[in-house]
Amino acid sequence: MKVIGVTRDDDGPQLLERERPSPDPGEALVRTLRVGVDGTDHEVLNGSHGGFPDGADHMILGHEAVGVVEEPNGTGLEAGQVVAPTVRRKPNGETNEYFRRGEPDMAPDGEYTERGIVGDHGFMAEYFTSPADFLVPVPKSVAEYGFLVEPLSITEKANEHAYATREPFDWRPDSACVLGNGSLGLLTLWMLDQEYDRTYCVGRRDRPDPTVDIIDEIGSTYVDSRETPVDELPGAYEAMDYIYEATGFAPHAFQTVKALDQNGVGVLLGIPEPWEFEVDGGSLHNEIVLHNKCLIGTVNSHVSHFEDAVETLQELPAWLLDDLVTTVTDPEHVEAAFEDGDDQIKAVVEFDSL
Amino acid sequence: MKVIGVTRDDDGPQLLERERPSPDPGEALVRTLRVGVDGTDHEVLNGSHGGFPDGADHMILGHEAVGVVEEPNGTGLEAGQVVAPTVRRKPNGETNEYFRRGEPDMAPDGEYTERGIVGDHGFMAEYFTSPADFLVPVPKSVAEYGFLVEPLSITEKANEHAYATREPFDWRPDSACVLGNGSLGLLTLWMLDQEYDRTYCVGRRDRPDPTVDIIDEIGSTYVDSRETPVDELPGAYEAMDYIYEATGFAPHAFQTVKALDQNGVGVLLGIPEPWEFEVDGGSLHNEIVLHNKCLIGTVNSHVSHFEDAVETLQELPAWLLDDLVTTVTDPEHVEAAFEDGDDQIKAVVEFDSL
Repeated sequence: MKVIGVTRDDDGPQLLERERPSPDPGEALVRTLRVGVDGTDHEVLNGSHGGFPDGADHMILGHEAVGVVEEPNGTGLEAGQVVAPTVRRKPNGETNEYFRRGEPDMAPDGEYTERGIVGDHGFMAEYFTSPADFLVPVPKSVAEYGFLVEPLSITEKANEHAYATREPFDWRPDSACVLGNGSLGLLTLWMLDQEYDRTYCVGRRDRPDPTVDIIDEIGSTYVDSRETPVDELPGAYEAMDYIYEATGFAPHAFQTVKALDQNGVGVLLGIPEPWEFEVDGGSLHNEIVLHNKCLIGTVNSHVSHFEDAVETLQELPAWLLDDLVTTVTDPEHVEAAFEDGDDQIKAVVEFDSL
Repeated sequence: MKVIGVTRDDDGPQLLERERPSPDPGEALVRTLRVGVDGTDHEVLNGSHGGFPDGADHMILGHEAVGVVEEPNGTGLEAGQVVAPTVRRKPNGETNEYFRRGEPDMAPDGEYTERGIVGDHGFMAEYFTSPADFLVPVPKSVAEYGFLVEPLSITEKANEHAYATREPFDWRPDSACVLGNGSLGLLTLWMLDQEYDRTYCVGRRDRPDPTVDIIDEIGSTYVDSRETPVDELPGAYEAMDYIYEATGFAPHAFQTVKALDQNGVGVLLGIPEPWEFEVDGGSLHNEIVLHNKCLIGTVNSHVSHFEDAVETLQELPAWLLDDLVTTVTDPEHVEAAFEDGDDQIKAVVEFDSL
């Protein structure tokens, strides 16, 4: 079968021929429909995420997938059922307390692998196998966009964790800001715009730009951070009740404290490299305390977040899905999915259709 | 009546003679038993907390009080009942949404005054008045230590807010660390030691020292931050599930991120001045995200936290109360309560007894 992988000799995605996998007991065989590409895939290619599967000379890419159950293999799934796979897996199949509790997203380093990211093959292949417990049903009506369930699940978890921090009091937020206008930022912006009176999205692009067009269409305010740095949001617009950081630009974590309104929460999702810089640590500390602020980080997601994401996917408007997915390519032309120009928002590799 | 106040001409506490206040409708008159002194009182004397009451040439000090209802004044309280007053009050008596919800601790600047701290007289007086809604009943059996209800309530709120951040998953913490060995740190250390398998307290004192003796007696591990900086706790001892910062030393906020175990939470309570310094912001941001960490600030507390604190006060062992309260002085010798030597842990001004 055809797979898209990365080898030790190349830093671009390679079309390879590999044997179709056979499901072990408890696993189903899935025929892949589509696999999305995101920043993490680029990082895997650049080698900043580590670890091929043990003994392998390549790693199959891709962690945002949707497929159809080809062989249920006695797992209780049905042949023809559309599913989205979660990402974290037991290392060497050995379970631990985090997998037992259904919370692999909270597992520490070494107690998980991530398919297509670290230590385990991904889903960019005509077929993949997965334990049935990690295959989340997706309605056929949204199968075409089922590869968005994984990124949406990241935001479902981030929102759940961020909002929990505000549970002890009667929080009444009305403004939210997304830092970053990539595909995850735009999906999140639409989600937040359903809840908040006023939403903002921070990017660094000149108009006309397809992401800014989406921000406009959502009805949010586009903020160019070259003109208005994040910590100047309160003066230029308003202090934010909720900030969702999806840039990986380290100063944003600190600027978020100043951009938040009293009693606000900032959730961090970016994964920057080490970078030393000066901050007014005294004022940041003081500000977090005197105004009951919170900074929380979240990574990955688990099955219930995938289930919530399936609900959200069914609510996304058709125009947003159309505008968001800028490239659909077959495996033979996979390079098109890894191009990174300003007109690329979300690229997808299509292996098959329903 | 005798009051201890600060005037515009002095930066030490002054024994003054003022008229006994009369309760307005909805208020009770309270005969003061004891009032504790803490770091905030020293800051008020140093002028770093602002604002005397409107038009006043002095401000009565003190925000950690216990007293006896002298005149219920039709409020539903009973004469002779022991009470601890909360700290925040409506500015000019004008209510707002935060007071309506019973959450004045979440009110923004300008929507509250604080008795003895900013804009309102404190409780260091033979008598004070207070709206009955802000007087929390204290059992007579612990009246002598009722001035600890206010500081304990700060930790009740901090713990409530910090633990809420870990609600979305099955958090199983077993190590906690208090940064700071002042009276609030030590009370909190005892509280945490009831819940956690292993507790640590960070200070900068040589043995023998009365606070280190208390840390030993609690059964916690004393960490001298001159030998082991906070960010080196994981290597020297272990990564912490919970960190409670009560030093106001700004680098601690940042070191806390590194000292936390995966999925850990750090609660910040200190109020440092502005201070610029260099941090590895990239690694901090990265660490918060990849290990699901959280930093949360809290300030002040409200009635339910006082009620929880009353419960906690009744559980505190006699030896801890004895060792903690190092000075009990009458108003005529109030200077003794503001001395700041290494043998001073908690000082109290006693106006009367039951």
